[in-house]
Amino acid sequence: MQFADRLNNVETSAIRELFKLLGKPGIISFAGGFPDSAMFDVDGIREASQRALAEEPGGALQYGATEGYEPLREQLSAFMAAKGAKDVAPGQLIVTTGSQQALDLLGKTMIGPGDKVIVEGPTFLATIQCFRLYGADLVSAPIDGQGVKTDELERLIAEHRPKLVYLIPTFGNPSGAMLSLERRRKVLELAVKYQTLIVEDDPYGDLYFGEAPPPSLLALSPQVPGSRELLAHCGSLSKVLSPGLRVGWLVAPPELLAKATMCKQFSDAHTSTFAQATAAQYLKAGRMPGTLAHVRAVYAERAQAMGDALRRELGAAVEFVQPQGGLFVWARLTGANGAVADGDVLAKRAIDKGVAFVPGAPFFCANPDRATLRLSFATAGVDKIREGVARLGQAVA
Amino acid sequence: MQFADRLNNVETSAIRELFKLLGKPGIISFAGGFPDSAMFDVDGIREASQRALAEEPGGALQYGATEGYEPLREQLSAFMAAKGAKDVAPGQLIVTTGSQQALDLLGKTMIGPGDKVIVEGPTFLATIQCFRLYGADLVSAPIDGQGVKTDELERLIAEHRPKLVYLIPTFGNPSGAMLSLERRRKVLELAVKYQTLIVEDDPYGDLYFGEAPPPSLLALSPQVPGSRELLAHCGSLSKVLSPGLRVGWLVAPPELLAKATMCKQFSDAHTSTFAQATAAQYLKAGRMPGTLAHVRAVYAERAQAMGDALRRELGAAVEFVQPQGGLFVWARLTGANGAVADGDVLAKRAIDKGVAFVPGAPFFCANPDRATLRLSFATAGVDKIREGVARLGQAVA
Repeated sequence: MQFADRLNNVETSAIRELFKLLGKPGIISFAGGFPDSAMFDVDGIREASQRALAEEPGGALQYGATEGYEPLREQLSAFMAAKGAKDVAPGQLIVTTGSQQALDLLGKTMIGPGDKVIVEGPTFLATIQCFRLYGADLVSAPIDGQGVKTDELERLIAEHRPKLVYLIPTFGNPSGAMLSLERRRKVLELAVKYQTLIVEDDPYGDLYFGEAPPPSLLALSPQVPGSRELLAHCGSLSKVLSPGLRVGWLVAPPELLAKATMCKQFSDAHTSTFAQATAAQYLKAGRMPGTLAHVRAVYAERAQAMGDALRRELGAAVEFVQPQGGLFVWARLTGANGAVADGDVLAKRAIDKGVAFVPGAPFFCANPDRATLRLSFATAGVDKIREGVARLGQAVA
Repeated sequence: MQFADRLNNVETSAIRELFKLLGKPGIISFAGGFPDSAMFDVDGIREASQRALAEEPGGALQYGATEGYEPLREQLSAFMAAKGAKDVAPGQLIVTTGSQQALDLLGKTMIGPGDKVIVEGPTFLATIQCFRLYGADLVSAPIDGQGVKTDELERLIAEHRPKLVYLIPTFGNPSGAMLSLERRRKVLELAVKYQTLIVEDDPYGDLYFGEAPPPSLLALSPQVPGSRELLAHCGSLSKVLSPGLRVGWLVAPPELLAKATMCKQFSDAHTSTFAQATAAQYLKAGRMPGTLAHVRAVYAERAQAMGDALRRELGAAVEFVQPQGGLFVWARLTGANGAVADGDVLAKRAIDKGVAFVPGAPFFCANPDRATLRLSFATAGVDKIREGVARLGQAVA
């Protein structure tokens, strides 16, 4: 069978191979990129689904508009307003099947073979693969603890004139980095200066541990005239409520949103109305603030425990910025005192010691930093985190 | 903003424009392609969703495997076995976000710019658009009341050497046609003879009114050695249980299924596990046979009422084959005695008389037959059907 040429642009991920090893008994995993099932508000979701079926069974079970279930669009508009993006009308967003589909629709709508796309180095692995399937030629923009370096970004935009720039400004995956307010403004100014579409992926912005992060690019865009017309924003309920609902959304300028909607019509017609109606009822019931407070408190404790344990158990063998939100610690092996300095090597040794994580190299679209690793603190309790990091300390020595 | 070139291959559908007129008060609509909301088994779905959340809340709400929720794959395997496809193991199918996504994944996996794809003339509109977005050059194979004409199909396969042949063998949309057993065998033989992938789209096969239709191509494939390796089959719960769940599935040879799964990973990660777990519980509870019997009986009565009314009210002005299943009457205007002979013209006149349907021309990828129309008998009750067809009789005169 002769497959489409676009499949030559992607490969089965090294991470998937690693995940096969996770079934080993007794292993402590920091490898996942998902929230803790134990924190799902099952009662709240049950009640929401019951109300959805009781109040409007036809709406919850019939075909729906490709743009999304109207009551959910209204709730999402209000949800974003509460986070500072006050002027996103329900008609300015479409509901997507997880924010992964928002990325796919942006790829389908915007990217053709050979088109340049700038992403952070490192960035979300599934974005790299998703965009490459549409033929993107990816360019890697360097980051530090304050997110993407905007001077480097400007140089790359000017050189490559990309179709779009993809950023996770708040608690990036895998970097955990938070783009500073100053750099956020600069990114929006670059959008206008070079008339370049910016895609803000924001699944983690609600998961902050102390102070709230700076406004999202979306919330900030009214301060930079012309930038909203060059900004797409991807949101998701997956990390804060439930990934299984597969409810994400895309905010975009009108013409782009219309094209993405047309593409969605032929991708899956619409997102599950049953899931959408359930999410709408959940948001309407006002349970989200309590859920967020709970999730933030638990992850904050775990992040602290992991940071403390890394400093205690690995000492000079790693360097990292203590995360202020999100799900991940992004660390770099220093090789100090003869410790392991290669993420792949450490990953294999760690499995032998009974702990798993994801090496950082696959998150780079080019020039991987092989000394990096991503550690999720989301799914293991504090005791397991301490035990797992202790095992990691043995593996690195 | 510079969109991807692939968007130039599709246009906003004329049908969408028509649908905007459906809000007119008092209009009777035969235009939809969806089941009747009044027939949804709301109680059964409510119970299934409750059990899903009670028995395995983590499974229903967490990220899941891209291939699908394992208990649902098992239930779908059993569901297909009960319909004659006895040897489809759970691992030989993946769950998709409606069967629309199965089509999209086949497009993404198989079709590149300029690739030839054969479809029936007429065929499902969203398939035409979906495949064109991947650059397909579509070729139209003629049909009659017995489905695609296999002698013509063979000539077209030999001439065009297509990437795939897409068929709706059982109660086609829009044609309502049922491919005969003899032609089904022939299609499978052509797959082997020309080593051409056949895609069987089968959302309507369970909606028969009298005798069960011939076995699906999938069920028949063991009788034609080598054909299973060249057959993809798309199934759906949308027409028989609920479109809002967005649960479809794709059966395909192993290598194709693996590639489609990789594409799905970057399209939407996985189908809503909440919807999948609900569907699995519904099937497990054994309610489907009763639901199908009910739906068949209601649609059979409506199909009969529509056929009778068309003969009575429009007489020689139309010709059609009385449907034996599915949701549609596919009719052709004869122009007899000076009656309207153009589907577009009639559609506009019909709206003025208070009845809506979809003209047939857009369902052809080439050489549209402008005298055709599609009438759905699914969503209006018998009295409304009689009244609507009477209005149509006034419009055609």
